[in-house]
Order: sequence, then structure tokens, then C-alpha cells
Amino acid sequence: MKKFKVVFLPSHKEVEISEGETILDAARDSGVEIESICGGVKNCGKCKVKLLEGKLSPLIDEELESISDEEKTEGYRLACAAQVIGNAQIYVPEIGQIEKQGLKRTVAGKTIGLNPAILPYVVELPLPSLNDPTGDFDRLRNNLSERYALHSLNIDYPALLKLPCALREGSFKCTAAIWMEKEILDIKPGRSDHLYGLAIDIGTTSVVGYLCNLQNGELLATQSMMNPQVVYGEDVMSRITYSMAHPDGLEKLHRSIINGLNQLIKTIVEGCSLSPEDILDVTVVGNTAMHHLFLKIDPQYLGVSPFTPAVHQSITIKARDLGLKVHPSANVYLLPIEAGFVGADNVGVLIAEEPDQRDEMSLIIDVGTNGELVLGNRNRLLSSSCATGPAFEGAHIKFGMRATTGAIERVRVDPQTLEVDFKVIGETQWKSESKSVRARGICGSGIIDAVAELYLNGVIEKSGQLKKEQAASRLRTSGEGLEFVIAWKEETSIGRDITITQQDIRNIQLGKAALYAGARLMMKRCGVKKIDRVILAGSFGSHIDTQKAMRIGMFPECDLNNVLAVGNAAGEGAMIALLNREKRRKAEEIARKVEYLELTLEDDFQKEFIEAIAFPNLIGAP
Amino acid sequence: MKKFKVVFLPSHKEVEISEGETILDAARDSGVEIESICGGVKNCGKCKVKLLEGKLSPLIDEELESISDEEKTEGYRLACAAQVIGNAQIYVPEIGQIEKQGLKRTVAGKTIGLNPAILPYVVELPLPSLNDPTGDFDRLRNNLSERYALHSLNIDYPALLKLPCALREGSFKCTAAIWMEKEILDIKPGRSDHLYGLAIDIGTTSVVGYLCNLQNGELLATQSMMNPQVVYGEDVMSRITYSMAHPDGLEKLHRSIINGLNQLIKTIVEGCSLSPEDILDVTVVGNTAMHHLFLKIDPQYLGVSPFTPAVHQSITIKARDLGLKVHPSANVYLLPIEAGFVGADNVGVLIAEEPDQRDEMSLIIDVGTNGELVLGNRNRLLSSSCATGPAFEGAHIKFGMRATTGAIERVRVDPQTLEVDFKVIGETQWKSESKSVRARGICGSGIIDAVAELYLNGVIEKSGQLKKEQAASRLRTSGEGLEFVIAWKEETSIGRDITITQQDIRNIQLGKAALYAGARLMMKRCGVKKIDRVILAGSFGSHIDTQKAMRIGMFPECDLNNVLAVGNAAGEGAMIALLNREKRRKAEEIARKVEYLELTLEDDFQKEFIEAIAFPNLIGAP
Repeated sequence: MKKFKVVFLPSHKEVEISEGETILDAARDSGVEIESICGGVKNCGKCKVKLLEGKLSPLIDEELESISDEEKTEGYRLACAAQVIGNAQIYVPEIGQIEKQGLKRTVAGKTIGLNPAILPYVVELPLPSLNDPTGDFDRLRNNLSERYALHSLNIDYPALLKLPCALREGSFKCTAAIWMEKEILDIKPGRSDHLYGLAIDIGTTSVVGYLCNLQNGELLATQSMMNPQVVYGEDVMSRITYSMAHPDGLEKLHRSIINGLNQLIKTIVEGCSLSPEDILDVTVVGNTAMHHLFLKIDPQYLGVSPFTPAVHQSITIKARDLGLKVHPSANVYLLPIEAGFVGADNVGVLIAEEPDQRDEMSLIIDVGTNGELVLGNRNRLLSSSCATGPAFEGAHIKFGMRATTGAIERVRVDPQTLEVDFKVIGETQWKSESKSVRARGICGSGIIDAVAELYLNGVIEKSGQLKKEQAASRLRTSGEGLEFVIAWKEETSIGRDITITQQDIRNIQLGKAALYAGARLMMKRCGVKKIDRVILAGSFGSHIDTQKAMRIGMFPECDLNNVLAVGNAAGEGAMIALLNREKRRKAEEIARKVEYLELTLEDDFQKEFIEAIAFPNLIGAP
Repeated sequence: MKKFKVVFLPSHKEVEISEGETILDAARDSGVEIESICGGVKNCGKCKVKLLEGKLSPLIDEELESISDEEKTEGYRLACAAQVIGNAQIYVPEIGQIEKQGLKRTVAGKTIGLNPAILPYVVELPLPSLNDPTGDFDRLRNNLSERYALHSLNIDYPALLKLPCALREGSFKCTAAIWMEKEILDIKPGRSDHLYGLAIDIGTTSVVGYLCNLQNGELLATQSMMNPQVVYGEDVMSRITYSMAHPDGLEKLHRSIINGLNQLIKTIVEGCSLSPEDILDVTVVGNTAMHHLFLKIDPQYLGVSPFTPAVHQSITIKARDLGLKVHPSANVYLLPIEAGFVGADNVGVLIAEEPDQRDEMSLIIDVGTNGELVLGNRNRLLSSSCATGPAFEGAHIKFGMRATTGAIERVRVDPQTLEVDFKVIGETQWKSESKSVRARGICGSGIIDAVAELYLNGVIEKSGQLKKEQAASRLRTSGEGLEFVIAWKEETSIGRDITITQQDIRNIQLGKAALYAGARLMMKRCGVKKIDRVILAGSFGSHIDTQKAMRIGMFPECDLNNVLAVGNAAGEGAMIALLNREKRRKAEEIARKVEYLELTLEDDFQKEFIEAIAFPNLIGAP
């Protein structure tokens, strides 16, 4: 098999690769990140790269759907389609590069009762002698039993190895870190209150870690990163497909999240002058697929009816069994899964938001590639999941991107002139206030703003159709049909106009219709006429203009004062479970309490969905 | 640092080694086994090798004590003293080569009630559907709870990973292997009764594995090997010293026993057409030091007063945490330790022999480098440990060797002529019956036979002194004093006369005196005048002539009909614990019940010991 060298610009990363492998394979091998939503099956068109030098396999038909004639002459190709047939130099355009997420570093400042799974116990043991040569562990165990009424304690193997030296180093005074009054995880000489834990939220797109002091509950640091699995496909289904289509696919997906987390852990502890071994407890939330891939459980049965997960209940396993580099005896607690794709992340949202503690009827929407919905109050909780598609996360949108630096996150349209003003993530000023603002693309909240403004100003009809008769200079016909220019070429850093196309609007309509129809069916099932509160969760939820979301019909009408965007509630739930073990019991309880409504089994779903496609919807239409 | 090549003959193994390292280091690195009792501190003289080509560092004084002038001219050196200073070719003489142990492959054919820790449960689960999408594990757990009343089951992580595919492969009929009604260790599609376990006896010198079918209790195979730690020192103290003197000493000792066991496991399962993954349960016995080194627990505190072990009670850990290559979810159960060096091996002996189930007063002697003694009956059990020295195992004896092929194991002396006849391990006939019998050395039981015969025939006085006036042609004076020839040069495979020296007799006297004095003190402490039964355990115990052992005073007088040699009772105890979980509880109980008598703390020990040095002893003397 011939080998060729591929060099990527602007990173100058090199890799040697076998003839016939694709540029996407080469990028993955060399650690160059190229956006790929479809997971390499040639239909998302996001992995465009430019050949600078050398030769690639001939252009194929699938590529022509995403690559314009102009791009073709410039040497653009789809990285997933173009095969290596010789040495090559490849440029990865800025728009296709994945960059570090700029997630908010704060979590809603709730008071979480401190009751961690691990507590330190200080003991002073009688010294061994020829008349009392009791073994070290037996001596410790007896003392803990007498002094703290901790009976039948076990000791984890690595802690047993440390025990003899730790006891003698502290002259038989020591601190035992004990998990759930059951298992000794660590022994330190003398008195020590050095106990830390990490809560992890594994999102499909981004991963966030929260480092906490388990002795006082303090949040020491938050660290986020892109989920490194993104290179194997942007959404859950494409990752499941990747794991099924490649013999080592599951292993690769698993290793990539574990390695990524080990890197995140290293960074977050170093920032606090701690070491990874200081982390003695870990909690994890994530949707069902992220949960399975993190554990290396084959996710294939999640992808086919009846969408059965390997496990619903919470599980606790040793970090060392996962290869997670924290304290060798640390336990990893994964919150329970509700049903189907309604995963541990949603349970996290529920223990953070506690809709079951209220009389008011709450609707919680966690918007991602899958929308997860919970409706209910203290009497009843109903959950469901609907395929919103990735449009709200900026994918399947022509100039869509994630909510990172350079993304248009807010849009205003002048009712008179239809002129557009926008705000870009990373800039404090609007475009109209600063000439230096440059956009790279548009993220979910920007798209919602844009669609809502265009609809409210009559550029988009109720049906979602862009109105041809609008003579605005920004409305034009391209090869793909009508489109509306949000940012002119000069206002961007990509050298092209950023537009919203008719297709983009359709994708938003499908996504919001799924959420709306889901909510309506749940209300019907619960006999609820009106919702008292709406909670928008997810990183999406912290950027969104709640009013505009309601105006285009993302969710049923509600008093706007009671619509809250709460940010990453799933991650907050993981932190709550880390700091308060009672909430783990609560998580188990609530996960079992929630009734799951499989929307695709509901007779009315199709009807409700179709009625919800229009703006704001046909139900609420005057 | 210069590197040189060392070639060992007759194995032709090669190794490259740094200047200044010893031949013993080179042998360890290349896997060549050289006997070394003292662990490389230049005082046992057992590691003699011959330089064939090349140069070594100059001979040092310590070597001259073990190397005769003749050997010096032939190029003999101590491997632990001679340093590499250039390429060299080294001959390892037959007498110094460690060979595979020829342990007996049968275990006393007792009926052990079958009640293993792991049982198979067959279930047929309802198929998941959109109306019942319960997770796989939850589904299994619910079913096991309903059908078998197994509540709150856990599943081990590797079993969880297998679960989704195993369930579907068997159309949701499966067999769960469950440990102690607590933890699911394995899932197999359909019905399966494929359950195996391994009992391991880690002796200081030899290691034995017993492969059992856990479904019917059948012993499928027995496999023994030399404890690979022997190259780091032959006795427990020299291994402890090795682990303390070398930064990676503990790691090396631990790895060598684990690697050795993995090899043993491979061999034993292949012989039964099984795979290592079929072994789901493992039990282990061994003395306290072997127990600690197996677990990688620093043994340094075992070697100094008050000789405290890291743990007394039994422990159960995952085989994977030890690197033991069996089923990934297998648990390893180590029997409890009694006290000091009276370890899990002795507990194994106790559950095999059950002295606590009898009215008669039993004395159990497990003879090794440390003699372990238990005295008692259903009312009381007393244990103690005494340093017998390695003489009974053939070490510290001029022509001593372990009980392997070529070792003289039985000796007869003609009362008239004082002519000697002997029997060699590996031969069915005595020397007098076959001209082809050739001896390599003499093992423990042979030495006892020889000393007893010489004593009974007046060649050795009561004091232990060889009688000069005995004009037998076999009694002569060598450079080291008097010695008695057991085998003439022509009757050996080593080209030298095999003799028993005055010093050898002294070493036997010291060993048997320690055992005798220990037994006497225990009798005193218990107020026992006469012992009803004596049990001789250990591989030693299966070769020994019990009558002669009593005649030289290894243990107090007892009706000879009630003196039993039971072979490897410790290994049998491991097997009993493997096949019957109830015996594990029993082991814990008996280990706590046994009172430990620290002989060195007894006022009378020195007096009793000195009185016991003579043959048979001064106490029983007429």
C-alpha cells in the first residue's frame, strides 16, 4: 500500500496516509479538526477544503451539490469524498475550523445543600505491638467502627496498597476518605481535608467540567471544550452510525471522549494548583448516546426502535476502569437515564430546576439536536424527545455555525428600510456601533432573531415563504432560490455575503414545529390548557431572545415574565449530584417518576406537527 | 555506560548488560534461573557459575568461602559477586539450575460440599417494545428480582458492556453468572453452565494451581511451577530485603509472580481446552509475605517487630486490578491471615484439616522455611510460627536441593556394614536395584532419613556429633570437618561425592529443635500432656517418613498410627474455599478464633529450644 504525505494549512500539521484514504481520514489522524455534520457520508457539505498543491481523486457527483462552479475552479473539494492519490497540501478554510467553545463560565448561583458522597474521617489508632499485632486495615476498620459507627467498611485496592506507609508516616494518625459510609478510597497521614470532585456535562457538541471543593462546596473552576467526538460526526445519529460502520468505531469514539476529558481534567486542576489525583469523586450527565459512548457501551440499539438503552438506572464505576485519570480509587457516578434519548442530562435539568416541587405547570425545553421536553408539576411529570434537527445549533443552515466567536447571535431589522444590524459573539458592540465587527457565520440564536425579525417585518409570510415582492436590496435570488443577506461580504471575515436562505427558514420551521407539536401533545395528554412557566435550557437557552422565540412559535403562549433562559441546567444538575448525595437518590426517584411519551406513537403527532410549521402556528392564529 | 553481551550455557540465552552489573543480574534479565538462597548478598554460595570465555571482575574474599581451590582454577565464580567487564560466556552447572517442580498432582480426595461463590441464573426476558423500552440491565435486574428474589443486584462494568449484544444474540434468553447473590459478573446468550474457577497456593518455593468446574466441583487439572520470585531470594526474608533494597524491588517481585501465574493459567486452561476468560473465580492462599507481594503491598513492616501485616481479614478484589489474566470480571479471594507469618496458607490448612471439629488434640505442622504450628481441638486453637531455617527444604545443606527429579528422598543404612542405599525422585527403584540411578543432591526428606538412620545406627551421637571412632569407609574428614558419604561420585550426575556434613546435621538439629520447642510451649500453654494426632503438611509432608521424623524428635511423641502426612493441605484449603463459599466464612471465623502465640515472647523458649537440640531430645530421654 503506497503512503503519501498530506500537509494541512494554516496549522502546518502533517500526516502520512495510505493511498485511497480521504482527506477527512487524514485530518482525523493528524488531529486537524474539520467540521463534519454527516459523519462522512457526503451529504452535509460542511467539510469543504481547498487543494493547494498535489492531486486528489476525481470530483464525484455528490460533491457538486455543495461545491459551486466558482469553488470548483478554485480547487475546493469535500474532505470526506476526496481521496489521497499523491502528496498534497490542503487548506482548511476558517469557516470549517472548529474552535474552542466560549461557554458561559457561571452556573446559576443556587445554594446547594452540601452533603457529598465522600467524607473525611480522622482517627488516631493505638500503635501495634507484639501483644497487639492486628493488621493495619483491621486496626483502622475497628477504630472507625468504634468511633464513628461505620461498620463493615471495605477498602478499595489502591488505598490498601498505600495504607501501611500512610499510617506510619502519620504515626498512626490518619484521615480516611470514605465513600457513602461503605468504602475507604484514600488514606492520608495526619489530618487532611483535601477533597475535591468534578462534575462533567458531556454534550453532543461541548463538554463542560466543574471542579468543586467537596469540603466547603465551593466551585473552584469551570472548563469547557469541544466534544472531540465531533470529528466523527456532529449529531448523535451520525456517531452511532460511525460506531456501527467501523470495526474500531466504538473504541475510537470512547477513547476520544476519555482522552479529551483527561486533557480537560489536567487543565482545570493545574489552574487551581491541584493534581488530577486530588479528584476523588466524579459525576457525569449526558444524553443517552453520550452516556453509552463514554462507557464504551455499543450504542447501536439506541438508534433503532424501540430505542432501548443498555441501562436506565444510575451507575457507579471506578474511574480507573474507564481510563479516566483522576484519583485511582475515584468513583464515577452517572445520573440515570429517563427513556430513549431523554438521558441523564435531562435528569440533571430536573434536579436543577425541580419542576416537581411546584404547583405551577412548567414546560422545560432543553434545545439541542434532539429537543428534550418535560411538562409537569408536583402531581405529574411527562417527558418526550423530538428530532428538532441541528438547525438551532447552527447546522444544516447555509452559513450556520456554533455559538462561538464570530457568530452572529442577535439580529435587528429596521421596519422602514429593512436594513440589518447584528451583534457578533466576542464583540461588545453592534455592527452599527463599530466598523471593526466582522461576522464568520450565524448561530442558533441569531437565526431565530433573524427569522423572527423578518417575519415580524413582513419579509417572511406566515407560511414561511420569503416574499418576492419585497423589493429590499437584501432579498435576492441565488442558484438555490431566494435568500436574504444578513451581512455583506465586507462585514464578514469569510469574504462572502452571509445570507438566510429559504431552505434555512424551512429547517427552522421544522425544528420549531417539532418542539411546538411535542409540547402541545404533552399538554393534551396532561389535560393542561395553559403553561405557567417556560424554562429554556442548554447553551442555546442562555443566548436566546425568549420573546422572539415565542413570537415564531417555538413553544406555546406563556406570560413572557415567566419564560426563563437558565443556561446549562444539565451541567448544574451534575454539580448538584456531586455536592449532595441526597440529590442522587432524588435523581433516581425523579427519573422513575417521569412518564415518557413517545411522540411518534401518538396519533395526532403528524397533524400537530404540520399545523405548527407556519409562523407562529395555525393553532394560535387569529 | 558500556554494554556487554553475556551468553548463558547450556540454554544459550543471551543478554546485553551494563558494565558493572553482576552475572546474577544478567541471569535475571535474560530469564535464566540460578539458585540464590541469600538473595544476592554473597553468603549462601548457591549461585556458583563457571566462566567459559571472556573476563569478569576479580574474585573477592566472600567468594573464597564457597569456592574451592580446584573450582577456582576451573573458573568458578559466585554469580552474585562476579561483575561484567566485557563480553562473557557463562556455564550454569546442573546443580544450580532450577527445574520444574515434580509436585504430586493429587489432592486428598475429600468430599467438599459444592456451594461456589458464583451461580448461573437462566432468565427469559420480555422483549423490549415502544411501550416497554426499559433499559437492558433494568429489565434483567427486575426479572432476576422477581424470579429468583435477587434484589439490589449490581453489574460489573465489563459485564454491562457485553449485556446489550448478549441479550439480543440469545433473543433475550440468557444466563447471568452472579457472585454471592450480589454482582453480575457475566452474561451469556441462552443457557450456559460454563463456569470455572482456579485455586492458587503461592508457596515461597513452589506455586500450584487447581482448575475446577464450579458447576460439578470436578478438579479438572493441577499445575505447578517454581515461584518465579526465587531468583530474587529463596526465603521470605531475603525477598523482603530485596524489595526494600531496590527502588523497583516490590514492583519486580509482584510482576514476577503475576506473570508466572498468567503463564500457569495459560498452560492449565489450554490443557482442558478452555480459555483464561472461562475462569470466573479465583482463591489464593500463601504465607503473609507471599500474600503481600502478590497484592503489591510493601512487605517491609512484616520483617520488623511487631511484624504487622497490612491486613488480617480476607479480601476480595478484581483480578483485572492485579493484572491477572482470567475473566475480566473475576474476583480474587484471598483467605485471611492469622498473625505474623502465620498466613492464609495456614488458614487453608485449617479449613482442610478442621482440627476444630474434633475432640482429639491435633498438632498440625506445616514445614517450610518457616514452620507453622497449630495445636488444638474444638475447644481451643493455638498457632505459632518458628524459624526452622531452610534445611528441611534442602537449603543450607551442602548437597541440599529441593524435592525434584534427581534428589535423594529416602536413605537406608545397613546396621552391619553401614553401607547406604537410597532412592531418587523420578526413579521407581532403589539404587541397590538399578545401576542407572544417579543422584543430583539430597532433599529434605532424604536428609531426615539419612540423619535418622545414622543416629539409629550409632554413627551420630545423641549430641549430634559424628562419631570419629566409627571406622566406616564413608566417614571421613574434609576441609570443613567430618562428613559421611551418602552417594559416591559414580552414583551421581554431578561428578562429586554427595555427603552429609557435620554442619548439615547441626542445621537439621536447629530446625527440628525449633519445631519441637514450639510444640512443647504450645502444649504447656494449653495444659496438654499428650498429643492425639500429628498432621505433617507441606510438600515436605508428602515425602517424609513419619516414623523417622519422630525418631529424631521433630515433634513430641505420638502414636505413630495417628501421624499423617497430608501433602499440600494449604492448596487443598484454597480449593475448598473455591468450591464452597461457606468455608470462606469458616476461614474468617477460624482465623479469628486461633490464638497466636509469639514464641519469642515466651520465657521458656530458649531453654526448651536448647533442650530439643539433642537426638531425639533431652526431655524424652530415658
